[in-house]
Amino acid sequence: MLGSAICGTDKHMYSGQMNLGLPGAVVTFPVIPGHENLGVVDTIGKEAAQTMVTEGPPLRAGERVVISADIVCHHCYYCRNIYGYPWCLNHRSYGDVISCKDPPHLFGGWAEMMYVLPGTFMFRVPTKLSDEEAVLAEQMAVAYGAFGRAFQGPNSKEGYAPADTVVIQGIGPLGICNAFMAKMLGAARIIAIDKSEYRLKLAKQLGVNETISLNESASQQERIQKVLNLTQGLGADLVVECTGDPNILSEGLDMLRLGGTYLVEGAFVEEAGTTISASRQIVAKNARIIGAAGMPFQAYGRVLQMMANFKDSIPFSKAVTHKFSVEDAETGLKKSIEPDSMKVVITPHLS
Amino acid sequence: MLGSAICGTDKHMYSGQMNLGLPGAVVTFPVIPGHENLGVVDTIGKEAAQTMVTEGPPLRAGERVVISADIVCHHCYYCRNIYGYPWCLNHRSYGDVISCKDPPHLFGGWAEMMYVLPGTFMFRVPTKLSDEEAVLAEQMAVAYGAFGRAFQGPNSKEGYAPADTVVIQGIGPLGICNAFMAKMLGAARIIAIDKSEYRLKLAKQLGVNETISLNESASQQERIQKVLNLTQGLGADLVVECTGDPNILSEGLDMLRLGGTYLVEGAFVEEAGTTISASRQIVAKNARIIGAAGMPFQAYGRVLQMMANFKDSIPFSKAVTHKFSVEDAETGLKKSIEPDSMKVVITPHLS
Amino acid sequence: MLGSAICGTDKHMYSGQMNLGLPGAVVTFPVIPGHENLGVVDTIGKEAAQTMVTEGPPLRAGERVVISADIVCHHCYYCRNIYGYPWCLNHRSYGDVISCKDPPHLFGGWAEMMYVLPGTFMFRVPTKLSDEEAVLAEQMAVAYGAFGRAFQGPNSKEGYAPADTVVIQGIGPLGICNAFMAKMLGAARIIAIDKSEYRLKLAKQLGVNETISLNESASQQERIQKVLNLTQGLGADLVVECTGDPNILSEGLDMLRLGGTYLVEGAFVEEAGTTISASRQIVAKNARIIGAAGMPFQAYGRVLQMMANFKDSIPFSKAVTHKFSVEDAETGLKKSIEPDSMKVVITPHLS
Amino acid sequence: MLGSAICGTDKHMYSGQMNLGLPGAVVTFPVIPGHENLGVVDTIGKEAAQTMVTEGPPLRAGERVVISADIVCHHCYYCRNIYGYPWCLNHRSYGDVISCKDPPHLFGGWAEMMYVLPGTFMFRVPTKLSDEEAVLAEQMAVAYGAFGRAFQGPNSKEGYAPADTVVIQGIGPLGICNAFMAKMLGAARIIAIDKSEYRLKLAKQLGVNETISLNESASQQERIQKVLNLTQGLGADLVVECTGDPNILSEGLDMLRLGGTYLVEGAFVEEAGTTISASRQIVAKNARIIGAAGMPFQAYGRVLQMMANFKDSIPFSKAVTHKFSVEDAETGLKKSIEPDSMKVVITPHLS
Repeated sequence: MLGSAICGTDKHMYSGQMNLGLPGAVVTFPVIPGHENLGVVDTIGKEAAQTMVTEGPPLRAGERVVISADIVCHHCYYCRNIYGYPWCLNHRSYGDVISCKDPPHLFGGWAEMMYVLPGTFMFRVPTKLSDEEAVLAEQMAVAYGAFGRAFQGPNSKEGYAPADTVVIQGIGPLGICNAFMAKMLGAARIIAIDKSEYRLKLAKQLGVNETISLNESASQQERIQKVLNLTQGLGADLVVECTGDPNILSEGLDMLRLGGTYLVEGAFVEEAGTTISASRQIVAKNARIIGAAGMPFQAYGRVLQMMANFKDSIPFSKAVTHKFSVEDAETGLKKSIEPDSMKVVITPHLS
Repeated sequence: MLGSAICGTDKHMYSGQMNLGLPGAVVTFPVIPGHENLGVVDTIGKEAAQTMVTEGPPLRAGERVVISADIVCHHCYYCRNIYGYPWCLNHRSYGDVISCKDPPHLFGGWAEMMYVLPGTFMFRVPTKLSDEEAVLAEQMAVAYGAFGRAFQGPNSKEGYAPADTVVIQGIGPLGICNAFMAKMLGAARIIAIDKSEYRLKLAKQLGVNETISLNESASQQERIQKVLNLTQGLGADLVVECTGDPNILSEGLDMLRLGGTYLVEGAFVEEAGTTISASRQIVAKNARIIGAAGMPFQAYGRVLQMMANFKDSIPFSKAVTHKFSVEDAETGLKKSIEPDSMKVVITPHLS
Repeated sequence: MLGSAICGTDKHMYSGQMNLGLPGAVVTFPVIPGHENLGVVDTIGKEAAQTMVTEGPPLRAGERVVISADIVCHHCYYCRNIYGYPWCLNHRSYGDVISCKDPPHLFGGWAEMMYVLPGTFMFRVPTKLSDEEAVLAEQMAVAYGAFGRAFQGPNSKEGYAPADTVVIQGIGPLGICNAFMAKMLGAARIIAIDKSEYRLKLAKQLGVNETISLNESASQQERIQKVLNLTQGLGADLVVECTGDPNILSEGLDMLRLGGTYLVEGAFVEEAGTTISASRQIVAKNARIIGAAGMPFQAYGRVLQMMANFKDSIPFSKAVTHKFSVEDAETGLKKSIEPDSMKVVITPHLS
Repeated sequence: MLGSAICGTDKHMYSGQMNLGLPGAVVTFPVIPGHENLGVVDTIGKEAAQTMVTEGPPLRAGERVVISADIVCHHCYYCRNIYGYPWCLNHRSYGDVISCKDPPHLFGGWAEMMYVLPGTFMFRVPTKLSDEEAVLAEQMAVAYGAFGRAFQGPNSKEGYAPADTVVIQGIGPLGICNAFMAKMLGAARIIAIDKSEYRLKLAKQLGVNETISLNESASQQERIQKVLNLTQGLGADLVVECTGDPNILSEGLDMLRLGGTYLVEGAFVEEAGTTISASRQIVAKNARIIGAAGMPFQAYGRVLQMMANFKDSIPFSKAVTHKFSVEDAETGLKKSIEPDSMKVVITPHLS
């Protein structure tokens, strides 16, 4: 393994959350964590070399690849009819759902080596991309898939369209990947909201246009007003929820213009539900709310190609702020939860 | 006037609700109610004849027309950029926002005559359509616009697609118009849920395939299970909220398949908000929720043409179950709230 | 086999055409013709029962099924990235590309029994549908896929939208299936053009609104003018080419309104190319031309469900005008080329 | 006027072409050329200040604006139903259709001052943009509108999607604006084809990834093969025609992958038509061909905002290679036709 990035899912799992959202996606301990995986092919069989790659010639030993986090069954209703999305009824994923108690055991990325099961897709990394850029592929693919679900084309004002103003609630690792994606998809302005000054400052260096700090704008109402002030009183075209806090929904909806779109990506854990206004925030606003968990697997390959073309203008690798060895994984995980980190990567061979 | 149908908005207004949803859409008493209007042109000026019609030659006296409920300013951000939708910041509408206290006073459809303001669009009624069919145009246009916002094309499984299974929560006048629209847009199966046996029975005669009665399935959980049983355990592709009850949202979301779409059209009035699960019902489900109030004005003309082509196979006119004279308007309004009515029309000249 | 409909491809093959359009789609004689297949499962293995069906429980002997005409490899670029479309680089199809010289030989539908290869999808037929309706599934699926490629949603005037006026050039079997599809997708008016009075008359009985006969309107210019006259001088929103004649393209483009869409489905055989105007008919007209061969395989299942829901209002089965036994297949094929037939079906057990 | 860029239309007009493509778009001499206009508001009336701007507060004297090239009637079928597109049946445009023989005469941009007619839209220029960047707005808007018509969303492989490989035939001013747009919309790779080494070299500096020179690849077959070699033998996802040569269509279609999209923007002038294969290049290829002339007017405002956000990473202003005074306009026009120029601008006050 070249590296495995720490994801919000890992943080939830560390804090004891066992249910990862999708039906049947339950953590089965013991696990080797790590599903945002970048590695080098060590050994590969002939059939696997052909069927595990989505594009180009068969894979060979020595090639650098991103490994899809999910394995789908190809036979259930969702696999047959909504191809590519990990909505599979028999869905498994590395680093959490797939336990390491069964041989050959090595089913997570925070490790020297990893065993890749039949049915997994792997994606060649363009030579232009550094390891630190490539290890962002999974989270970039989430953003690609999510924007893909919101997209309705440049000549439309439904869903996301290029030249839109995008608000990102929570500019941690998932938030910054959504900011990168918004930029690559032609957003005119990106506004980030967070409580970490460290993350807001870094976000500005990485292409975010405006920031709203919870330290300065402590109340929901102040933050909503700031977004309105930045948008001629109209509200944003697109708001992206990347906080993990389900109770942020009402605030996000109030930041939308009429007919605006709300992408909800982060709110993975919840108990009691959250309160919104069906009449004012949905019907009268003509709002569009889209939940996005996972991504079509083709998104991995596509974001790698886009990142290779944008690497000169977008400093993707600066989003990786910390690296830890496998031995120090727990320290790394704790760092990833602290506000003075962005993406934290576990890498067996620190460079 | 040939007729003016009673809408949910009229019912809300009668019960004292003053705020109609869209920003600035506040009832200014006194009003002459009636915004789902069908009439015959009595007198029309030369410029109006050209500019008030969206298609075909200038209007002439004697022509039968449907009159758009909304007048937009053509100059605000929404008018300029999201043309056709009544999201105008200076929006006015007949029968509620436009008071009859100002001359020439006749700004509602429950009347012998009505004055149509400059900037209003009017739509010729195809000769094939009866008055009772044509008077459904406004509510059909709401459904057309709403399905339009959900539509993503036959080869997609995002949003609504032909051959989908559609659940309609609440099969009153708005619900039945959505059922008509679903049928005309190629739905494979339509399931209606209501507490009125009268409406469920009528819905079956009008093309609904399955019904779920609140009298038989009293609990939310029973109704959800019925929908799952009808869909191989997957849930519906599209659920349409036409109840007016914001607290129905959670039930509707649980009836969706993964990646399904929820059109919220009826929940116009609300005070305390409603509770949903951001993680389970939106993110993990990859749900799409779309609020739809109003419609692009072109929808009026388009539904009239579609209804003309489908009138032999869909008995639209049977949805008009009661007609009252202007004098009996209050009796009519009360009837429209009772469970043994579908669409109620105020018509000056009872036929 | 319950029946196998004769397709344009069969007619081309009979006349000696060996190349069927898609790359690699070359007829390998000897063949048993027949790829629009309806049959009853005789024997099926356990794994096939699960993997050959796209929806619902495993298949069982005795179930009535439509058999996908195409087998794709699941591993090439197109299979991986554009799932469902038969653009597979290793594409094979029954009745033409798959020769019957190899065992077990029975690879075509004009026969008592047919052998279904691993990787083929099969689709349960709803009990409401008669055999004559179900045997139209393949050609209906072509129309579904084609309209799917043109569809841009009801609130758009790009591509096909409900309430559009649709012109169909050539109202033979492919044309009439496109007319059925247009009707089920909410077209406001369908205009059919043909040289066969028999087909035009039948088309009117099957839901076409207007017909243009080549016997009355012999010149291209007359036919274009008739379409303009029927559309306020604007041209049609959608024109569908179902003639098989590539030289019809220029006429079809002239029948479009500005920004209109042209679906080209029939022009399978050609030698010298055809002449169109890039400036006048494409750029200045802002035209959209979409070629459609084959269909996403899910379309089979979806059209069967739609047909079941529309069978009371659309008399699909009347499109099957002739049936022949396997022994009389050549007579049937000749009949299918004559102007006084619509769909011709080869059925082993004439009923 | 701050500047007015020379467009292909001006070159056609100079060479005597009188018909500009859209119905009724006929040059009426005498004209003051110039429709890609950037200026400063000198005097504006109160009503015009409100109605001529599409977003934000009323316009004021001294503000820098891009002036829409087209004036539409707002009342014809296209204005009513396909808002924003210049498909107006009473369409007029500055610098060509609108003659300067009528008072107040100043209806073209190659001048000190220009008179802007009621009904024209004007777009504020973000302060971040230089004059040389802003003067590209009209041609960028053409590209935005064209990509908008091709766009089908990131999760689709229909039409254009981010991460696609884009071929641009002809990398003159229109071609380079399409390359800029492709980059801002997330293309993974842009391949430019031209006969001018000057333009190809400049294109590489401006973000094009690969170039194919007609000097090295003289035959159509060689160029097609080069594109296939760059795309694993598949062909490009999107090809954009910006040559003005209608006979390039066949070559462009052969460069597409199965299901690829061909945007035709440049082929404005033609006499005898061009030959393509309906069967091989459209039907069997499942190709999508989209003609694009003009743009929705909102595109002006949207590209200005996008350019402001991308100006640090895309050197738009380098595309303006030559500037001439109004007195030297003819010299400028001649230079614009020569292969060693990209965008040529007429500017009254050379800076």
